[in-house]
Parts: sequence; C-alpha cells; structure tokens
Amino acid sequence: MEHTYAIIMAGGGGTRLWPVSRKERPKQLLPLIGEATLFQGTVQRLEGLFPPERILVVTVAGQVAEMRQQAPEIPFENYLVEPAPRGTASVVGLAAAILHKRDPQAVMAVLPSDHFIRNRDLFHYLLRAAFEVARSGYLVTLGITPTYPSTAYGYIQQGEPLSGDFKYPTYCVGRFKEKPDDATAQKMLRMGGHSWNSGMFIWTTEMILGELQRQMPELYTALGKIAAGLDSPEPAAVIESIWPDLKVETIDYGVMEKAEKVAVLPAGGLGWSDVGSWDSLFEVLLPDMDGNVGVNGQHLALETHNTLIYAAPGNERLVVTIGVDDMVIVDAGDVLLVCKSDQSQKVREVVAHLKKHHQERYI
Amino acid sequence: MEHTYAIIMAGGGGTRLWPVSRKERPKQLLPLIGEATLFQGTVQRLEGLFPPERILVVTVAGQVAEMRQQAPEIPFENYLVEPAPRGTASVVGLAAAILHKRDPQAVMAVLPSDHFIRNRDLFHYLLRAAFEVARSGYLVTLGITPTYPSTAYGYIQQGEPLSGDFKYPTYCVGRFKEKPDDATAQKMLRMGGHSWNSGMFIWTTEMILGELQRQMPELYTALGKIAAGLDSPEPAAVIESIWPDLKVETIDYGVMEKAEKVAVLPAGGLGWSDVGSWDSLFEVLLPDMDGNVGVNGQHLALETHNTLIYAAPGNERLVVTIGVDDMVIVDAGDVLLVCKSDQSQKVREVVAHLKKHHQERYI
Repeated sequence: MEHTYAIIMAGGGGTRLWPVSRKERPKQLLPLIGEATLFQGTVQRLEGLFPPERILVVTVAGQVAEMRQQAPEIPFENYLVEPAPRGTASVVGLAAAILHKRDPQAVMAVLPSDHFIRNRDLFHYLLRAAFEVARSGYLVTLGITPTYPSTAYGYIQQGEPLSGDFKYPTYCVGRFKEKPDDATAQKMLRMGGHSWNSGMFIWTTEMILGELQRQMPELYTALGKIAAGLDSPEPAAVIESIWPDLKVETIDYGVMEKAEKVAVLPAGGLGWSDVGSWDSLFEVLLPDMDGNVGVNGQHLALETHNTLIYAAPGNERLVVTIGVDDMVIVDAGDVLLVCKSDQSQKVREVVAHLKKHHQERYI
Repeated sequence: MEHTYAIIMAGGGGTRLWPVSRKERPKQLLPLIGEATLFQGTVQRLEGLFPPERILVVTVAGQVAEMRQQAPEIPFENYLVEPAPRGTASVVGLAAAILHKRDPQAVMAVLPSDHFIRNRDLFHYLLRAAFEVARSGYLVTLGITPTYPSTAYGYIQQGEPLSGDFKYPTYCVGRFKEKPDDATAQKMLRMGGHSWNSGMFIWTTEMILGELQRQMPELYTALGKIAAGLDSPEPAAVIESIWPDLKVETIDYGVMEKAEKVAVLPAGGLGWSDVGSWDSLFEVLLPDMDGNVGVNGQHLALETHNTLIYAAPGNERLVVTIGVDDMVIVDAGDVLLVCKSDQSQKVREVVAHLKKHHQERYI
C-alpha cells in the first residue's frame, strides 16, 4: 500500500435526511448509525489501510472546524477547504494536483464522507484489489451489486472481464447510466451485469490528471496554477483566487463517462448505503423479527412491521406504534416526521416548502 | 323546566385516550376539543337549560378540587364525592335519593361528563322533550342514530312508537344489547330501528327510586340510610360508612335491562361522541378536504388522508406526514403515539404493558 492515499469528499449539505440533518449540521457530521458520525465512520473505516497523514479531507469553510474536532488524528494541513462548491470534478482535481506534487507515484481512493459500509474487512480487501487495478492503468470504480430495482442510484454496466491476475473479479465499464425509471431499473436487475454507482473511485494521480487534461482542459490549467502556487506564502489565497471561475461539474459526467480505460469491481455484501434517504438508511440497519428498527429512545410496537423509528440523540420520548406498516418515524425534537418508507425522498419537497414560507428555523 | 335537574357523572379514570389522558388527569379534565375541557363543555352545554344550582356533579375525591376550579359557577355543595367507585347504579341512586329529599317532584337528567356534543340546540330540544316523556312515567334514554356499524357501543332496539303527544319521535325500548360483533353491528345498521346507547338518562326521582327498590333492594335500603343521614352534622361520614359495602353495578344492567316502562328518543345529527378512543374523537372533529384534522401545533401534510394529528396543548412541534393514510398521530410531549385509526382501542394494551413493566411515569 505504498504511495496510496485516501481523499474524503466531505463538503455536502444535503437535506435528504431532514429533519435530523439540517443546514447547519449536514448528515456527515451526525451520528446516524451508532455513536460515530458518518464522517468519523469513514475515517475509522480506513484504519489499518492508511496512516492518518495519508488521508486528505476536502470540505467547505463552514464544516472544517467541526471535522477537525471529529477526526483530530488527521493532520491539520490535510484538511483542504473548497472556497465554494464547484462539483466533484474540481474537488477530485484539486486533491490530485496537490497529491501529485507531493508524490508523483500517488494512487488515490476518492471516498464520500457520508456513506455507510458495514463490512469493513471486505471494503479493505476491495480497496487493495482496486489499487492494483489502478496501478495497471485504469480509472477504477467500486460498483455495488443491486439487491432491488432502485431508482435512486446511477448504474454502471459491466463490459468484458478485465484480463490480468487481479484479486477480485474486475470488469471493463460498458457504460454509466443515469438514475433509471422503474421499468429500466427492474430490467437491469433481471439482466444482471449492472452495479450501482457508489461514487468511490481509485486511480493514480497521473492517470486522472491526464484525463482532466484531455477532457476538462480549463480545469486542468487552473489546477496547474494552484499547484504552482502551493509553495507561495499563502496557498489558500491562490486557491481562492482561481476557484470561483471554475465550471461546476461532477467527476462522473466530466470525466468518467467519456474516459477510455475504466474498470469496475462489483461488490456484493458490503452492507453499503449512501444514506441518501431515510429509506436507504433503513436498508443497512439490522431489523428485529418484525422488520422493525428502533434507533435511540424507547419503543413499543404492536402489530407493527417494517418500520423505522428514529430518534435524534437526546430524545427520551417513548414512541408507541400500533398497526403501523412500512413507515419511517423520525423524531428530531422540534420536528416530527411520519412518512411511508417508499416516499421518504419527498422530505426535499417539505424542505422546499418550508424555505418558501420562511420557516428557516426548521431547515 | 321546573323541578328539573342535571346530574353530571364525572368520576371516570379511563386510559382510552392515552397518552394524552393520564391517571392523574383523566379525559373529562382535559381540553380535548377546543379550549374547554370535556367537563367544562358538559357544564356549558347546560346553560339556558338549568341554572347552576340545579346541576349536581358526582365525582371522586381525587378529582373534586380540579372540577370545582373548572366550573366554579356550580355551588360548592353540589359536588358530591363518591368515596369509592361502585358503578353507575350507586351514583345514580345517590343523586336520586339526595334530590328526591330536596324536591319530591324532581326530574333528573343523568349526563356523562366526558362526552362531546356539537349540536347544542338539538341537545336542548331533546332534553326538553325527554323531560316531558319522563314526567309521563317513563325511564327515558337518549339513543344515538348509528352512522356506521360500531362495535364499541351498546345498542338499544326500538319497539313500538310511544303513544302521546310528544315533541320528538319516541319509542318503547325493545331490548338493550351489549357491544356487538362485526356481523351483528352490520345487521343492526341495515335493519334500522337500533340506536347506540349514549348513557344519557332522564327520569323522575320517584320513578328511578321505585325501580331501585324493586330491582336492587339492598342499594335502595342503603340509599334510605344515606338520605336519613343527610340532616346529620356529618353527612359525608354517613355516605362513607355505607358506601364500601355496596355492590358494584351499572345502571344499565342493574335497572334498565329489566325495567318495564323504558322509552328511547333516537337522536340523529347531535354530533355526539363518547370520546372513548382516538378514533371516536376523530369522528366529531371537522376535517379538511383530504379528511385530515390537525389539533394544536403546526402540520404539513403531503399525500396524507384521513389522518388525525393531535398535539397536547403546549407542543409547538412541527409534524410532517408524507404518504400517510387512516392514522392517528398523538404527541403528548413525553410519549408519541402513531396508530392506525381502526386500532386505537389498543392503547389499553399499551397501558397494561407499561403497568406490568413498572413504567408508571408514562401512565
């Protein structure tokens, strides 16, 4: 694992786990599963794989202080502040440019800060395998073997198996696909050969910078200026002067979809979730015999099935459910959400409504 | 309306509206509908029909102080304290014995303290009519015309129309029926000629005391002793010495079922509820176009239908529902209940469970 680095992308501020996740406290900073926050979990998951000094965190100004507090083992200077959100392409490019300057043989794993993975051993195994594939000249992505026809994730179509003596089944990527409709999702699940796009990427800095040069030359030029300015007395000022002019773009769309040598390792059994909705959090919690999960607080369930009862820490309320099926009940203290599981994406509409009606205190 | 009196029966301590109704604060003492408590509503409903000095309240020691505070217009001495619960037969008998001594021509209306009636004018009209029927020598009961096949109420089967020039359609009572099963309830609804037993009775003290003498001679003898002791320096002590030995019995079973001259006025459109469960409270609240009712607090409903969201006063929480149908959501501060409407009777099982597990603080 020489020359390997982890880049944790941690600037997001989603409201999909509202009302627990708030503008001021986005989900990566919250202890949604167990006692660690999702960000802490992401850092802890790397123990034994990377020493802390080879972990970089890219985040935003409003979150960096809290993150340094949550993961003090990561050196102060390894926290990079993105002056303004410009999409994952810029974040990845910035980390790659900085790393490449530090270590031209660097291989980096790009990891979201707000995902959950239950099976840490398998995750380590997959990353080791992926680093090998990356070193052999591929942009590598970890795919997640679908367990149901989700319409909430993008998909990766597997191509031919990659020739080479790899430690894990590895495929060329046929095609990246946007979030599908119901029928397409069902079709892909039945066909097989498709993975969910986890947003976890592994590549050499050389390779990704080469792709950026080819596909996003403006960004590449800007990154060159930033790299040159890193030795200046005020490297942060250099980044800040260049960043606002960058085009907003995702790494998926900006690079991956048109890259030539892309490989996927389709992972099953990782216990992965992007924790992108209450429903998706529910998927990775461990239910009782009735399919219910209670998190924090005290619950009493009569004739209740497949229901998540989630209390934000500190809520000692007793929650009683009677005749409740397939629901998500979230108690955030000042807000209570009662939601059919398969409609939990609609909290976004609620947040939009509250914003429109100037009820910021609930957002 | 000369010689007419109202007896409010107010000693109950049910837990069917748990978690808002608690052991220490039973439902009649709570403002469940509007700003008045159910007890205050019962008293206010009598305005214009009885002056306060002709309203008697029979309650228990633990509730009398609060009741006097809630309805100070009723004279202090009109609050009678039942030393221990001995069923409605004893309560009715006690009130009748006391009233009869005060006014041998008394006609009394027995009214539960914890019911709700929206249509006050019709209620007044019915009581006036019932007093007339009572004076002509009948034990009178107000029936409620069923609007659905409820299994939560007892039923009264109408017999022949009562001859006489009464102000409202009045029938001999064919038979009192216990709470039915589903099939029987449906059959009675389809047949017609059946009313729900509202527990509201109207009769002369002479007539009811005569029936007690015939059907419950032991109680009658005890009431005679109490009546004689009312002139003693310590009338409460007399009641207390006799009361513990009384048999527990309801007026329905002890008197009404075997009485000979019983009449019923089947009332439709009263907007009546015994508020005996969340479901039954829901029935008399006024829903919006989606069938939803929000009581107190703030609500935001997406794809929500026929759902009651009830916050105990003082709860400023925002409640959001998404994809919720036919539910009752009750926020009592320390307890949250989420319940399918048609299963709201099961809160009793919850209370029993909590009792068994020594969680008295929630009861």
